[in-house]
Amino acid sequence: MKKYSILFVLICFAAILSAQTNKKYVLVIHGGAGTILQSTMTPEKEKLYKQGLQNALNAGNTILKNGGTALNAVEAAIKVLEDDSLFNAGKGAVFTNEGKNELDASIMDGKTLKAGAVAGVTNIRNPITAARAVMDKSEHVMMSGKGAELFAAANGCTIVDPSYFFTTQRWNDLLDAKKEDSLKALHKDSTKALLRQPDNHDYKYGTVGAVALDMYGNLAAATSTGGMTDKRYGRIGDSPIIGAGTYADNNTCAVSCTGWGEYFIRLVMAKTISDKMEFAHENLKDAADDMIIKKLPALGGDGGLIAVDKDGNFTMSFDTDGMYRGYVKSNGETGIEIYK
Amino acid sequence: MKKYSILFVLICFAAILSAQTNKKYVLVIHGGAGTILQSTMTPEKEKLYKQGLQNALNAGNTILKNGGTALNAVEAAIKVLEDDSLFNAGKGAVFTNEGKNELDASIMDGKTLKAGAVAGVTNIRNPITAARAVMDKSEHVMMSGKGAELFAAANGCTIVDPSYFFTTQRWNDLLDAKKEDSLKALHKDSTKALLRQPDNHDYKYGTVGAVALDMYGNLAAATSTGGMTDKRYGRIGDSPIIGAGTYADNNTCAVSCTGWGEYFIRLVMAKTISDKMEFAHENLKDAADDMIIKKLPALGGDGGLIAVDKDGNFTMSFDTDGMYRGYVKSNGETGIEIYK
Repeated sequence: MKKYSILFVLICFAAILSAQTNKKYVLVIHGGAGTILQSTMTPEKEKLYKQGLQNALNAGNTILKNGGTALNAVEAAIKVLEDDSLFNAGKGAVFTNEGKNELDASIMDGKTLKAGAVAGVTNIRNPITAARAVMDKSEHVMMSGKGAELFAAANGCTIVDPSYFFTTQRWNDLLDAKKEDSLKALHKDSTKALLRQPDNHDYKYGTVGAVALDMYGNLAAATSTGGMTDKRYGRIGDSPIIGAGTYADNNTCAVSCTGWGEYFIRLVMAKTISDKMEFAHENLKDAADDMIIKKLPALGGDGGLIAVDKDGNFTMSFDTDGMYRGYVKSNGETGIEIYK
Repeated sequence: MKKYSILFVLICFAAILSAQTNKKYVLVIHGGAGTILQSTMTPEKEKLYKQGLQNALNAGNTILKNGGTALNAVEAAIKVLEDDSLFNAGKGAVFTNEGKNELDASIMDGKTLKAGAVAGVTNIRNPITAARAVMDKSEHVMMSGKGAELFAAANGCTIVDPSYFFTTQRWNDLLDAKKEDSLKALHKDSTKALLRQPDNHDYKYGTVGAVALDMYGNLAAATSTGGMTDKRYGRIGDSPIIGAGTYADNNTCAVSCTGWGEYFIRLVMAKTISDKMEFAHENLKDAADDMIIKKLPALGGDGGLIAVDKDGNFTMSFDTDGMYRGYVKSNGETGIEIYK
């Protein structure tokens, strides 16, 4: 009888272990959507972008493979993209009209619906860690400006001199944008001209994002951005707004957006995809495609998103020429793409 | 034959006029939800609150009655509440930890899905007019801090010295809050104690809001707040966030929220009610009650909202002891209430 008891315990133990470790995981990332054309890309530059995406996938995959959480995986992937000057987030952030770098980020836990976000921070090396700190260590969801920086510093985030964010490429982008803006201002009401969206969205803005399903069935989403080149008036886009640029709910999906932020705010993009799944029983791909391919351009916007659902299905939907994107699954399937 | 033509034209003209003027309109407003008990209210104070709500209803009703738009009506109603020091918005704004007044507001047009918001502004007499200016005169949706103030000043909003927002009542509230916070800090980790939500939500925060359906079938929503007493770290609540505190879509409804902002952000409250109507075909009251009476307290939050749908049905749902609220309809029906 005792022998059977031991066997039973061993079988239970194996079953629990197998239930935990056999469960699938998925990580999907993006590095921004826009006018990304193969014709204007050099093979060297393409290689660098793909390597940057691969590094982010590796960071997140290592965590998920070893039984880590979706939340830790998306944060780790975003940190790699923030530290890579190719992407408009963290080190590669674009410049505001005043020649500053103002960063936004947000993160959400699909299990608890807890969320954290920072807007307009200038000295936090990895804004996504500040967003995570807001979520984990405060009862707030969103902090902004100097207040957010004070909180981040008091809660273990790496603080850098704002000059850390300087890159020659982004500075030249600002000079180009200003030149273009002042030329247009000659022909139009100057306030309006300076507020208009760019003709070439690509060099003006970008975002990085990550969504994941871990082996425990938990979803998480995170987004980080350096904002819009030449932006003024303390403009806040969709990236730090829960429901617009970022959303995660274990009952439906995790979503991270990139594109013309104002339209993503007006459509409350990320939450609407979750709601279409919950209330209209649409599948993830149909919900995302309807919003990105139909509703978004119908309103006049463009961009894309990545999303993963509670069953591990994922989608990378965009209506622009390209979107830097990649994914990795627990079964080893992986891919990195740039163009349509 | 000519006589008939004239008659036909006259009938057409009357039909058009009747189609325009016979159509119903509705305006609903709130002045915040919280621990509002009849037992702690004096008859004099109650009269003042009711008069404040009546003034706001009158301002919006005059516009709607004369064929004005829902957008103008909600802005006008909010301006009256912002100018009334009884309500935590505009002149009655609460103080931050640093002894400042930082105001947030947002507005949305259900016809175009255009929206505008300002966060953390300190010198704009009526933040709702700044939110309206962001919507009407820029291609952005959300502006914050000094940038938003600069934009508002350049676009005709009345700028005041920050001392305009000083009221003895709110200053004493801050002193009380600080005393309570420092007492709690003795017993807990100080950072956490200062970040925790208040035991008595009522004196800590409040919001004003308005939603309307005009006689052309257009919906609009607007929300304005002075934030949370003793708030730190540039905290942004749900009021300036499109989808959380404010949403309007002619296909569904217009919503303005009040309460513990963090929970409204995490639930993306206003947009979810719209989505429940659009995708789950729920009626307005069921959608609002499910979110406010079930989902919100289940997550740990509290508060309320006002909403009107495209057919003129409206609801004023809350799970607190009271919510300052009122409505007026084109048929003359009107009401003002405070308690449950």
